[in-house]
Amino acid sequence: MGRSLQNTMINLGIQSSVDEALYQLGLDIEELEELEEDAGLGNGGLGRLAACFLDSMATLGMAAYGYGIRYEYGIFAQKIINGEQQEEPDDWLRFGNPWEKARPEYMLPVNFYGRVVDTAEGKKWVDTQVVFALPYDNPIPGYNNNVVNTLRLWSAKSPMDFNLKFFNDGDYIQAVLDRNLAENISRVLYPNDNVFEGKELRLKQEYFLCAATLQDIIRRYKAAKFGTREPTRTNFDLMPNKVAIQLNDTHPSLAIPELMRVLVDIEGPIWENAWDVTVRCCAYTNHTVLPEALERWPVSMFERLLPRHLEIIYHINFLHLQDVQKRWPGDMDRMRRMSCVEEDGEKRINMAHLSIVGSHAVNGVAAIHSEIIKKDVFKDFYEMNPEKFQNKTNGITPRRWLVLCNPSLSDLITEKIGDEWTVHLDQLTKLKQWAKDPNFQRAVQKVKQENKLRLAQLLEKDYGVKINPSSMFDIHVKRIHEYKRQLLNCLHIITLYNRIKKNPSAKFTARTIMIGGKAAPGYYVAKKIIKLINMVANVVNNDPIVGEKLKVIYLENYRVTLAEKIIPAADLSEQISTAGTEASGTGNMKFMLNGALTIGTLDGANVEMAEEMGDENIFIFGNDRRRSGRLEKERLQRDGLL
Amino acid sequence: MGRSLQNTMINLGIQSSVDEALYQLGLDIEELEELEEDAGLGNGGLGRLAACFLDSMATLGMAAYGYGIRYEYGIFAQKIINGEQQEEPDDWLRFGNPWEKARPEYMLPVNFYGRVVDTAEGKKWVDTQVVFALPYDNPIPGYNNNVVNTLRLWSAKSPMDFNLKFFNDGDYIQAVLDRNLAENISRVLYPNDNVFEGKELRLKQEYFLCAATLQDIIRRYKAAKFGTREPTRTNFDLMPNKVAIQLNDTHPSLAIPELMRVLVDIEGPIWENAWDVTVRCCAYTNHTVLPEALERWPVSMFERLLPRHLEIIYHINFLHLQDVQKRWPGDMDRMRRMSCVEEDGEKRINMAHLSIVGSHAVNGVAAIHSEIIKKDVFKDFYEMNPEKFQNKTNGITPRRWLVLCNPSLSDLITEKIGDEWTVHLDQLTKLKQWAKDPNFQRAVQKVKQENKLRLAQLLEKDYGVKINPSSMFDIHVKRIHEYKRQLLNCLHIITLYNRIKKNPSAKFTARTIMIGGKAAPGYYVAKKIIKLINMVANVVNNDPIVGEKLKVIYLENYRVTLAEKIIPAADLSEQISTAGTEASGTGNMKFMLNGALTIGTLDGANVEMAEEMGDENIFIFGNDRRRSGRLEKERLQRDGLL
Repeated sequence: MGRSLQNTMINLGIQSSVDEALYQLGLDIEELEELEEDAGLGNGGLGRLAACFLDSMATLGMAAYGYGIRYEYGIFAQKIINGEQQEEPDDWLRFGNPWEKARPEYMLPVNFYGRVVDTAEGKKWVDTQVVFALPYDNPIPGYNNNVVNTLRLWSAKSPMDFNLKFFNDGDYIQAVLDRNLAENISRVLYPNDNVFEGKELRLKQEYFLCAATLQDIIRRYKAAKFGTREPTRTNFDLMPNKVAIQLNDTHPSLAIPELMRVLVDIEGPIWENAWDVTVRCCAYTNHTVLPEALERWPVSMFERLLPRHLEIIYHINFLHLQDVQKRWPGDMDRMRRMSCVEEDGEKRINMAHLSIVGSHAVNGVAAIHSEIIKKDVFKDFYEMNPEKFQNKTNGITPRRWLVLCNPSLSDLITEKIGDEWTVHLDQLTKLKQWAKDPNFQRAVQKVKQENKLRLAQLLEKDYGVKINPSSMFDIHVKRIHEYKRQLLNCLHIITLYNRIKKNPSAKFTARTIMIGGKAAPGYYVAKKIIKLINMVANVVNNDPIVGEKLKVIYLENYRVTLAEKIIPAADLSEQISTAGTEASGTGNMKFMLNGALTIGTLDGANVEMAEEMGDENIFIFGNDRRRSGRLEKERLQRDGLL
Repeated sequence: MGRSLQNTMINLGIQSSVDEALYQLGLDIEELEELEEDAGLGNGGLGRLAACFLDSMATLGMAAYGYGIRYEYGIFAQKIINGEQQEEPDDWLRFGNPWEKARPEYMLPVNFYGRVVDTAEGKKWVDTQVVFALPYDNPIPGYNNNVVNTLRLWSAKSPMDFNLKFFNDGDYIQAVLDRNLAENISRVLYPNDNVFEGKELRLKQEYFLCAATLQDIIRRYKAAKFGTREPTRTNFDLMPNKVAIQLNDTHPSLAIPELMRVLVDIEGPIWENAWDVTVRCCAYTNHTVLPEALERWPVSMFERLLPRHLEIIYHINFLHLQDVQKRWPGDMDRMRRMSCVEEDGEKRINMAHLSIVGSHAVNGVAAIHSEIIKKDVFKDFYEMNPEKFQNKTNGITPRRWLVLCNPSLSDLITEKIGDEWTVHLDQLTKLKQWAKDPNFQRAVQKVKQENKLRLAQLLEKDYGVKINPSSMFDIHVKRIHEYKRQLLNCLHIITLYNRIKKNPSAKFTARTIMIGGKAAPGYYVAKKIIKLINMVANVVNNDPIVGEKLKVIYLENYRVTLAEKIIPAADLSEQISTAGTEASGTGNMKFMLNGALTIGTLDGANVEMAEEMGDENIFIFGNDRRRSGRLEKERLQRDGLL
């Protein structure tokens, strides 16, 4: 989520009054703002997207809840020491969090381990270990509309009688200390972006989120008593009319077997009705086609941790494969490919397949990505249920990424076209009439130059580096990954350096290249790339022949708050990931909104943005040639990829 | 400390205004008060005494700090299930604590482990593991005097760079989880009363308290810049004029070597000056003569955890034994007896000996106890330094233990003698003039009867037991110990039961015997005694022949808040511990203040109270005979024990 103070003031329309009031008290609102810790509860674009969706839903007046985990330690803080990344714990709750409100009255139990028994009323999951999920509510204010939605984050809490037997049989002190281990579930965010790690604690986190959230949803649904005359009985058939559960990638996909378990084992509906309710409630957003990112949990882990869910998944898969068999009789290879249970090597559950089977809608996050899903990654599923497959192109909130982070440009736009663009972004096209107006061009350029100067001052203050504010700010910020090709950028730096050295007197557009982003702590190559960039920066920045022509800055601890400062000052946005890997492409949208040019491969939502804006703003590299966005798009269409 | 809300209102003099204000809002102040959790941060009388001292010091307007540990889990909650004690974690901070204020600006590092190196500037303790001590301040309001003192409780906090190496070399998630282990230091109170357990985590807790507190004291002393012209240099020679460190038993006795370490290794003074400062600052209160309660830490534990302190203790002991040698040349047996290092069996540090050597004053907590110390337990030390040995008879605060818990009796007293008794308790003697006044006697009896009725209603509501409010309330509440002889009381119950059964028609004063108290979770015999009492109660309470004549109630989860309800309703206070074991005897004072009779052995401060009040109120058992307090006292004096 980043910080909340300024965003809240803007959305409530009180920013200037608060600013003025504090000024009269002799205080500086910006200084206060700098004291707030970022809520860093996600990794990369997927996490940022969820935050932007929450802002949009509140602004659209939709009655929506966001659900997540209240990690005691969010994404680590990155320190660059001797050019290398060092991780520091993100102890963001150290001095409390003024935005959250604990809601102990809605605390819920979550079960783990145990075993399944047959009873007269059906299967029951018994002898479990219980951990409580304590919700903390965080307000999500809509923009200027008197709507406040809720982000409900679950914190793991030992029950009072946790290990009660051990308390009384054994070592009292150890038993109290052990309570703490149960609370490890919400202790720390796994810092991986687009990679599946397969750790048991992570599976616990995912189930913890799903079990608490599903119970919360069902509690609220039951309390509303839709379509029932008997106050004691709930009519679940109407649930899909009232409840939509959007799975943000497969991380919460255990919601599907969990909803089945609650309905079939506890609430009463028979399997067929429960399945109908589940599929109509759930929808799945796919975020990546990178094979190493797809969740495939070992069956052995399920057996221990979630034995009842394993049975339910097996039965879901059994019925699913019957349907495949009916449609393509005897196509054993297709059945193998489409199964939720992978049998080659260690037996695993394929969570993406489970999500498709258990949802009524499956979407990619950009037109090109949604096409790849249908034609490649989930081709078999598309052939079987084409009606499920959709596209929902992602976006970003222009409140945080323009109004908040670039007030001068915001004001300039509003001066020309009024302020409705803040909630109807398509109105920005009205600016076209001033596109060739030299006064407007000058005004936009002036804002950009001021932003660049401000960033230069910040970098000098915080990092002690001096940069040339009239140089081109060439910015590459995102998680460090081989596929995101920070290495390619590094080679480009070396090329520029060699070019200058070869002919020092030649004309050269002065350039400040800034690269920022975190590497997953266990990702060896990514950390080596950071080191390489810093070592190259060392050579480049200290070469008197190069001087002010070329500077390289590694932006330490890239996060939402730093993005808000960097992006308004960008001249050039680097989007050079390998083609077809950036599913969403929202990372670039913030730059475009702030008037930066983009250079890179055609990917994700960029191609749609390019189309909307005209391709003049985007330079795209194909495999080996430099070409315009339009030409690249035509090539992709010709090749049937678009 | 128990609860703070009502005590705070009383001390600020706003109780009736708040009561009235809440009533007008349609709220009941008593209902709100019942929502507060007890701060249960100590065991038995020693802990309660510290709380009463804090109240008294604030009321006397003394500028004093209380220091302790902010245990995340205080003394366990006791559940009686099938007659047996079950422990439940005391998760008292679950929903926050409105009385505390975190003071991160005063956070301090505490070191553990590591090794000692010789440097040009002397010995240094290096390669340590650091844990931070984060202080939480709790207000201690004086009574009606506009004074508020501070109880500063330390909470263990991992430093940001905790295990940084591990963070970067190894498993990131595990490294974050491990931070939590360092914070185990302030996780849980050891639930032992008058027994030494010798666990490493407990030694860590004791050092954690001392190290943080000493740094805090020295920081404040240095900031005051007493007697120094050079602003950069502190004159520590004046410290004993400004700083008194009272050690509440030996649990904080590491303050002595820690103060030596800070002065000699860090601040500059040479050993002799540092030792002079240390001895003049420190004073030691002994609380027990039970041998099993005396702290004797294995040297091997010190070697690992506090290597520099072990060296310092050895040197303190070396110089101390030189003094013994000078005084009694060649008396090797005396040297062995007086050493701070015990050599028989596993080598151990005797913390009581260290405390006497490092203090300028040593006191017992009642005249009889102080005599036992001089003549028995610390005889050798008394012979060597008789001037160190003192008596300070303990007391209790009459604000909590009469004004707060028994407002009707308070009002009655104030009606007769004015309200100065609340701060000058000796004024209660003014009541003597009404001692024989039948109207006053009736009024006192009426208050007692109302209190008994209220307790009977509470017991029925909370425990579902029905008792006869006109029976004699015979109450035995304290930690469960063999030496406190709840077993003797149990045998008395059986005797009464048999007596009734033998002759059911004989006249018998109806009696409700209530026994309450927690057993340390690992104290097998004490837990068996609880079980026995409950089994006896089961027989007695369900025998129709006994009927209302005799009832036995086990008071579940005895704690400050329950004491406040029980004691004002007591007719008889059971003080039947084995003779010479109750050092303080404050447990009985609350009963005497609330007009109960005492029965029991002569012990601790009881003998002095008995003298003050005339012995008519106390019945005392000697070894085999029933006799009055005065006779028992004379016998003790004759035997040279008093």
